[in-house]
Amino acid sequence: MNLERVRGVRDFMPKEMILREDVVEKFKKIFKKYGFLPLDTPALEKWELLSSKYAGGAAILEETYNFKDKSGRRIGLRYDLTVPIARVIAMNPDLTMPFKRYQYSKVWRYQEIKPGRLREFYQMDIDTFGTKSMLADAEVIACSIECFKELGFKKFTVRINNRKILESIVKYAGVEKKNTIKCFRAIDKLDKAGLKGVKKELKNYGIKQSSINKIMPLLKIKGSPETVFKKAKKFIRDKIGLEGIKELKEIISYLDIMKTEAKYNIDLSLVRGLDYYTGPIFEVSAEGLNVSFAGGGRFDEMISKFCGKEVPAVGISFGIEPITQVLEKKQKIKQTFTKIYVIPIGNTKEKALEITQKLRKTGISVEMDLMEKNISKNLKYINKKGIPYSLIIGPKDLRENQLTVKNMETGKEEKIDISSIVEYFLIRK
Amino acid sequence: MNLERVRGVRDFMPKEMILREDVVEKFKKIFKKYGFLPLDTPALEKWELLSSKYAGGAAILEETYNFKDKSGRRIGLRYDLTVPIARVIAMNPDLTMPFKRYQYSKVWRYQEIKPGRLREFYQMDIDTFGTKSMLADAEVIACSIECFKELGFKKFTVRINNRKILESIVKYAGVEKKNTIKCFRAIDKLDKAGLKGVKKELKNYGIKQSSINKIMPLLKIKGSPETVFKKAKKFIRDKIGLEGIKELKEIISYLDIMKTEAKYNIDLSLVRGLDYYTGPIFEVSAEGLNVSFAGGGRFDEMISKFCGKEVPAVGISFGIEPITQVLEKKQKIKQTFTKIYVIPIGNTKEKALEITQKLRKTGISVEMDLMEKNISKNLKYINKKGIPYSLIIGPKDLRENQLTVKNMETGKEEKIDISSIVEYFLIRK
Repeated sequence: MNLERVRGVRDFMPKEMILREDVVEKFKKIFKKYGFLPLDTPALEKWELLSSKYAGGAAILEETYNFKDKSGRRIGLRYDLTVPIARVIAMNPDLTMPFKRYQYSKVWRYQEIKPGRLREFYQMDIDTFGTKSMLADAEVIACSIECFKELGFKKFTVRINNRKILESIVKYAGVEKKNTIKCFRAIDKLDKAGLKGVKKELKNYGIKQSSINKIMPLLKIKGSPETVFKKAKKFIRDKIGLEGIKELKEIISYLDIMKTEAKYNIDLSLVRGLDYYTGPIFEVSAEGLNVSFAGGGRFDEMISKFCGKEVPAVGISFGIEPITQVLEKKQKIKQTFTKIYVIPIGNTKEKALEITQKLRKTGISVEMDLMEKNISKNLKYINKKGIPYSLIIGPKDLRENQLTVKNMETGKEEKIDISSIVEYFLIRK
Repeated sequence: MNLERVRGVRDFMPKEMILREDVVEKFKKIFKKYGFLPLDTPALEKWELLSSKYAGGAAILEETYNFKDKSGRRIGLRYDLTVPIARVIAMNPDLTMPFKRYQYSKVWRYQEIKPGRLREFYQMDIDTFGTKSMLADAEVIACSIECFKELGFKKFTVRINNRKILESIVKYAGVEKKNTIKCFRAIDKLDKAGLKGVKKELKNYGIKQSSINKIMPLLKIKGSPETVFKKAKKFIRDKIGLEGIKELKEIISYLDIMKTEAKYNIDLSLVRGLDYYTGPIFEVSAEGLNVSFAGGGRFDEMISKFCGKEVPAVGISFGIEPITQVLEKKQKIKQTFTKIYVIPIGNTKEKALEITQKLRKTGISVEMDLMEKNISKNLKYINKKGIPYSLIIGPKDLRENQLTVKNMETGKEEKIDISSIVEYFLIRK
């Protein structure tokens, strides 16, 4: 039988999962400290929702798995966790605001497969709903930095921009309002296609040459807030642009108070792909690593478009895949939680089982030979897994009410009275 | 916009998720104690795998979501976690055995929607691969009982049967071998359709009347192992049947040693729907509750059918949905993790943020007003959420280097020096 997986999906073996669950647990603990609560939504959503023009937009829709179910309704697999949570907020008008939630779930995108980019992958999101305050934006950024610190990373760079500033730039360049989103999509290609690619894309979208000429040099502007804002004075003069700058200044002042110890760079070329952002947008990376660990922004309009009620929102999505990839290279990863491996010799299986269970009751992780392997095969298994102790139950020992403990690291063997075996391991826990 | 969900799926709001994550964490801790390690597989699997005649069988296949992706390949959403893990084991012939894994993931079944039965739901499975020893069967049962004990349940009933005994019964009744699985499927209808329904189903499958007459009375046999095995002597005399009984006796003897404190009932009508079981099958329920909390069994042949290599296997699947439903009714559920809610009054936002962050750094969960609400609205929010303390930062207090702490339970207010605020809460953590 052909046992291949579907293209673009993967299994996570125990070694990979032990690391991943550790990361997820650490993150959840920090999310809770910031007042975010868990929430879960279905993988399957109505196509009507996913394809709404107020949702992720045309680009992502091309990559969305969708099909008709047996009743003939078109359904799709979610491509992010933002559109579904917006649906939840819109469906529950009585929720107490602010509403802060975290979610760790899979999303699906039928996209080109590259190293580190698959078609089924996890996202980890936090979002705050119900407030326009830039405190909320600062909070999600600070919370994400604390998460990465918890993993052992030390220095961070946060790239920040504002859709309002981008809007102002596009307007300044003389682009018609209806083409604003198209310009954003073109600029978003910068990382992948370079400045030339952006130019080409703008042309493709029918943006006139004079506008392109005005936009292009501005995309190179990046650096410390002071530097960038000083330069921006020359071309950002309208209300929306000035509001965008004011918002970023406010966020950065809060982050200073919060002592995040990160470097903040304003980058006027930062767009972030999805159509739904309306305000500040940001990406956090660990310094020295050329990968974005988290990215997000403000999307104040999606929910009101869904349900008519105004519910501003801001959030950040953690790149759990790049983070674990970096960690896998960086640190030695546990292969097991088992502390003791119990080996019955001869006819001691029942006694071995009794002792195994007694040890487990004290909270220690214990495995017992389930395959009646000989002692050398068992020791091979123990060494391969990195289990620290083996406990050998031999008939001769048993007659003297004893057991043999082998410390697998030192190789040292000890005879221990059955009656004190639990205590022996409890003090070595 | 129409904001309905897809039929048969659900959201989990924070209140529900807090309980669920608590259950999952408790379970994982116990799984680790028994040597099970985390593993994850994709939601999307090739149709070829899911529809293999060695996988879940025809009944489940009718309920399986499937579609062609853009490349024209047929893929499906997994209907269980067993077939995918069998694929993983088959694809990785070098895995060290025994291989013990746990997995908590969603599965999808396009089935009739009933209270407590949806089309997208979580499964939580543990499985042990690579050993035929009944120790492994006993271990998964004991592990599941320990999980339910951890949730506060006290008494348990384990229904046990063996596919080998069922095979023997069907043979004894004179059914041709090729119709064995059909008989199992008919008997499996007992819970839903009653004895009459099973009779009708057997007839539909073309089983002859004399065979049906022999099978039907045996389905009523259930009770303590001694009682049932005594009765079984009259009709179970072939090798396969006797082997089945021997296996169950062995499992029960191990469970006795493990002191599980559960009641074991042999139930000759227990089938468990899926085609792949080959040996002992079991269901665990909490006494006094008419719901199955977990069910599983041995499936020694699936992997060898997939890859040619013999890898016996046994596992159990936890009904995380019925378990949480029972718990929701039984206990008061936390609505938040937040310990302190910080309220800035007037122009004290920056100071409030600084204090909020200082408190978070000590590990305490803190929320700060993000909406510039007035104090009474803030207190309403705090009470609704059940947050135990509010911390009021007023300009007058600040001038005296003080803050006001309000214990929300007692209503008592205290003035605390800024310099000792962290200590104040640390000793009240």
